[in-house]
Amino acid sequence: MKKNQSGRLTEQHKKSQGVIGIFGDEAQHHDNAVSNNSRIVIQKLKQEFPMLTFRYRKNITKEEINAALQKIDTYLGQTLFVHNSQIKPDGGIIEVKDDNGNWRVVLVSEAKHQGKDIENIRKGIQVGRNKNQDIMSAGNAIERAYKNISEIANYMLLEPYFPYVLFLEGSNFLTQDIKIERPDGRKVTLKYNAGNLNRLDRLTAANYGMPINTNLCENKFVAHEGLNVMLQAVSIYTQGDGESWKDHDMREIMLEIARTSLKMICKDIFDQISKK
Amino acid sequence: MKKNQSGRLTEQHKKSQGVIGIFGDEAQHHDNAVSNNSRIVIQKLKQEFPMLTFRYRKNITKEEINAALQKIDTYLGQTLFVHNSQIKPDGGIIEVKDDNGNWRVVLVSEAKHQGKDIENIRKGIQVGRNKNQDIMSAGNAIERAYKNISEIANYMLLEPYFPYVLFLEGSNFLTQDIKIERPDGRKVTLKYNAGNLNRLDRLTAANYGMPINTNLCENKFVAHEGLNVMLQAVSIYTQGDGESWKDHDMREIMLEIARTSLKMICKDIFDQISKK
Repeated sequence: MKKNQSGRLTEQHKKSQGVIGIFGDEAQHHDNAVSNNSRIVIQKLKQEFPMLTFRYRKNITKEEINAALQKIDTYLGQTLFVHNSQIKPDGGIIEVKDDNGNWRVVLVSEAKHQGKDIENIRKGIQVGRNKNQDIMSAGNAIERAYKNISEIANYMLLEPYFPYVLFLEGSNFLTQDIKIERPDGRKVTLKYNAGNLNRLDRLTAANYGMPINTNLCENKFVAHEGLNVMLQAVSIYTQGDGESWKDHDMREIMLEIARTSLKMICKDIFDQISKK
Repeated sequence: MKKNQSGRLTEQHKKSQGVIGIFGDEAQHHDNAVSNNSRIVIQKLKQEFPMLTFRYRKNITKEEINAALQKIDTYLGQTLFVHNSQIKPDGGIIEVKDDNGNWRVVLVSEAKHQGKDIENIRKGIQVGRNKNQDIMSAGNAIERAYKNISEIANYMLLEPYFPYVLFLEGSNFLTQDIKIERPDGRKVTLKYNAGNLNRLDRLTAANYGMPINTNLCENKFVAHEGLNVMLQAVSIYTQGDGESWKDHDMREIMLEIARTSLKMICKDIFDQISKK
């Protein structure tokens, strides 16, 4: 099935150059990129699955998340302090309408850029108190990523899949050593496993230390003494060589996650899918 | 059992004035407070349960968390980028040795202060670009709290309890309106439900929207279509009136959580407990 879909996608990719062409593959600001790519991905999904109805939205309110939790158990989702609280993943939320008329999440995407060392070194900018260091000590802002992850995990608490994808780029997310040349010709090595540079370990609790750059959309279950625990893991993708994300790569990953979501709920979209 | 323990505690509280006296109930910096209180709590636990062995530690390494995950399933806990990565909850970690010689977590505590509006108003300090506002727009740094929560949740992935307590104070965590007087006599009202002030909604994903100021140490289970999901919820406690945490109150909450932990693993400490 997947291969057929890929084939169909390639065909549609050719046809839809109009839509794609608006954005192109040129470098874009990372946050905007994921949002733009997400809007293209929903177009591709509509083409690939014309029998299904998709929608895109920028945000989801805490009220909705609470309502979803309340439906599961009235002791959950009780609290709301600011009435219009909402969450806004950078890439928005793509949903599909199931056979019962319920909107089901198929993709949530976020993109984080952290670490400007590569840009700084290329420009010959030194940092630190005395402006004599090549490398800036990495910050912790990335840890904020967990908040939206937790909110969406709660919203999908009883779904057997979790289509949350986090795209990382910047010098704090390397998975290999890289050499960057300064304007004066001196080469600076960024070591991927340096404690003052790498911040991937700050994120891997979100995927239970499972491999990065892997589609973890289908939930894993682990069991112990009659306990069966479902893991909602984020699919974390990083540009391990310090380069920027290519729009095309980002979109292929997003599509793969979205297709996995559809497969996971295929019982609930069967009537529509099989009508074709 | 709990009542007996409380009685015993009161007795021991009187005896142990020496230890308590070192720290006292005076105002302390919030982060230090939780660490100091945690060190007192372990003394109290040792007095209350002299048949058990407790230990306190400041941090836990990602290596240990990975090892715990690997023991559950070798696909988990695979990744480590910076070899000495570790997490350091403000209040450290209290553990007890079970009958099999394994250390089991009984308390993890963190304290966060966010929002200095009360202090600023009392001093007559105005904020904002033109220094003419009483209230500073609240920030998002608190969202970083989820990282340590997720790490400890993973470390305790198959435990039926989650003894993680988060103590909040500061003007961003109010649960009621308060009036603060400036030096010039003008009174400023801080509305607890103002979007630019309250940040509690940024944290309640960590307790699935269950009530705050509640001991949620014992995990809740929710079921749906053969799926049985275990919820690891943080016990979030806030000073809803904007005042600082009293050491005594903080310690009582910590003790309550730690006692719940012991109760939840009582099968595994039975030999030691019943020896008394």
